[in-house]
Amino acid sequence: MGINYKKIDVHAHILPQNMPNLKEKYGYGDEFIYLDHFQPGKANMMKADGTFFRVIDELCWNPEAIIAHMDKNDVELMALSIVPVLFYYWAEPKHTLEWSRYFNDYIAKIQENYPTRFVGLATLPMQDITLACEELTRCKYELNLPGVEIGTHIEHRNLDDPYYYPFYETAEKLGMCLFVHPWDMMSQEKMPNYFLPWLVGMPAETSLAICSMMFGGIFDKYPNLRVLFAHGGGCFPQTLGRISHAYHARPDLCNIHKVADPTTYTDKFYIDSLVHDEETFRFILKMFGPDKIAMGSDFPFPLGDLEHGKFIALMNDLDETTKAKLLRETAKKWLGIE
Amino acid sequence: MGINYKKIDVHAHILPQNMPNLKEKYGYGDEFIYLDHFQPGKANMMKADGTFFRVIDELCWNPEAIIAHMDKNDVELMALSIVPVLFYYWAEPKHTLEWSRYFNDYIAKIQENYPTRFVGLATLPMQDITLACEELTRCKYELNLPGVEIGTHIEHRNLDDPYYYPFYETAEKLGMCLFVHPWDMMSQEKMPNYFLPWLVGMPAETSLAICSMMFGGIFDKYPNLRVLFAHGGGCFPQTLGRISHAYHARPDLCNIHKVADPTTYTDKFYIDSLVHDEETFRFILKMFGPDKIAMGSDFPFPLGDLEHGKFIALMNDLDETTKAKLLRETAKKWLGIE
Repeated sequence: MGINYKKIDVHAHILPQNMPNLKEKYGYGDEFIYLDHFQPGKANMMKADGTFFRVIDELCWNPEAIIAHMDKNDVELMALSIVPVLFYYWAEPKHTLEWSRYFNDYIAKIQENYPTRFVGLATLPMQDITLACEELTRCKYELNLPGVEIGTHIEHRNLDDPYYYPFYETAEKLGMCLFVHPWDMMSQEKMPNYFLPWLVGMPAETSLAICSMMFGGIFDKYPNLRVLFAHGGGCFPQTLGRISHAYHARPDLCNIHKVADPTTYTDKFYIDSLVHDEETFRFILKMFGPDKIAMGSDFPFPLGDLEHGKFIALMNDLDETTKAKLLRETAKKWLGIE
Repeated sequence: MGINYKKIDVHAHILPQNMPNLKEKYGYGDEFIYLDHFQPGKANMMKADGTFFRVIDELCWNPEAIIAHMDKNDVELMALSIVPVLFYYWAEPKHTLEWSRYFNDYIAKIQENYPTRFVGLATLPMQDITLACEELTRCKYELNLPGVEIGTHIEHRNLDDPYYYPFYETAEKLGMCLFVHPWDMMSQEKMPNYFLPWLVGMPAETSLAICSMMFGGIFDKYPNLRVLFAHGGGCFPQTLGRISHAYHARPDLCNIHKVADPTTYTDKFYIDSLVHDEETFRFILKMFGPDKIAMGSDFPFPLGDLEHGKFIALMNDLDETTKAKLLRETAKKWLGIE
């Protein structure tokens, strides 16, 4: 492509080609997903109650096919994470643990088989913090995974909940990075048309997660935690002015945990580059800087940047050092890899 | 202040000092608001069930006090609209109509008493489209109000619902402008802390409203409708890249109504200037242009810009023509006034 950056992609999804049918196994759970492989290289993701969710292809499960795509797009390394609909935080914790172990073993195997091309981000039974911390520890010491993906909230708890303190403490101690991805989108039942849960709900979920962690004092309490938020931080960057104004105007509501001005937190966490527009990218780049933005594509889904940050490589107003950070170096720093 | 723009403010709220107690009157409705004037110039807004909502002062109801504030801030004219918690779309339509008529008569009187300082935006019983259109017509011909404020959704309906076609048609025909203000924030019950319904929910509501009207084909069907969205368009500008990408990637979901590329709609509606940050303002200005952004303050509430666009007047990179549009001329065009 003439670009020749050996890019690292922090936001890419994968799932096991032959997933167990968990509803059959556990006897409940209409929201468990199974795959209907209706032709070679194609499958329908189906909810256990028979509802169609999404059609996918082998770029969702076949490492060789993914590598061919990466080679075409100058992507050297991808951080693979689960598709959020498979978090299963709503299931019985022991079942989510079993599923998490299955998935984590699966991506650890891919990481082991292709050590120069993939790293894996774990999934955890976050609804049970003890099990989550145990599995996180196993992922570090037995599987050698560099980090974990979690949702923007877990069941009825936002990410500021003290229930998660042991998790943050463990992740910080182990040096495991966190990838926070929107899911279970707010009020999706009220926006049935136009894909709006993905276009309105997801960016709002990400802002909810950032605001919860920031106002909840998580970034202060665990300063070495490396957290990255998907989709360019969702709605957070554009509303940061409003958020900071509220912090000063209504400290009684916003500043329960004695945190600093919200505008000072843009160097306390990472975001990915996935905003699909150069001007918007310039806006978040000015706010966060190249040391806090890592290229993410949401591969292989249609809402993704399936050219993996090519638009960044082509931006004439960015110097080579900045591009190298955005397309590669910041990802390494967040992932904690060589 | 040395700025000396005779500014027009499109986003300012007011309520009647002596509101009737609607729960007592109608015998239901814990969400009706009454005022507890606990000292001169101060009142608690209380829900009928006795829940405290917000403390307010006379800048919420006293035109003379408001004018003194305007004079100090070089604001020549304000468009006054109801506080959204008083929309009462959830009540029986005949009661919301009665309340709307009461409020509309009240602001029409203020407009009449101070014709060079205030215009009034009506409120309507939007849950009953026939009553809404009748009252809108009355507001035009009997009260001479230039426009109306509505919520980002009304009960279970988003703003693309064909149920509202007669309303849009009437507003377009009468030349009444629409001010769309977030309220009844999505999933607020899931974000009890840090003022997040205002910081995450409200901007998402505004994006929901813009996306609903855009993908619903409303801007195409009623091309002369003049619609302005609060808070700099909420999350919409920053997520427009994502929204446009989705339009191309999943037309089966997004483009049911055969609309144009979402990026082309930024000259089909107006937004206010309320983003509390110069860089964010530059970002929306580059996207929408000064002909589509009008100064709005959310006066007199603490989340507002209580200097009424002073930061715009002070921005050195904007020329005088641009500033005049942002602070005055675009507001006139949207309001349809001299």
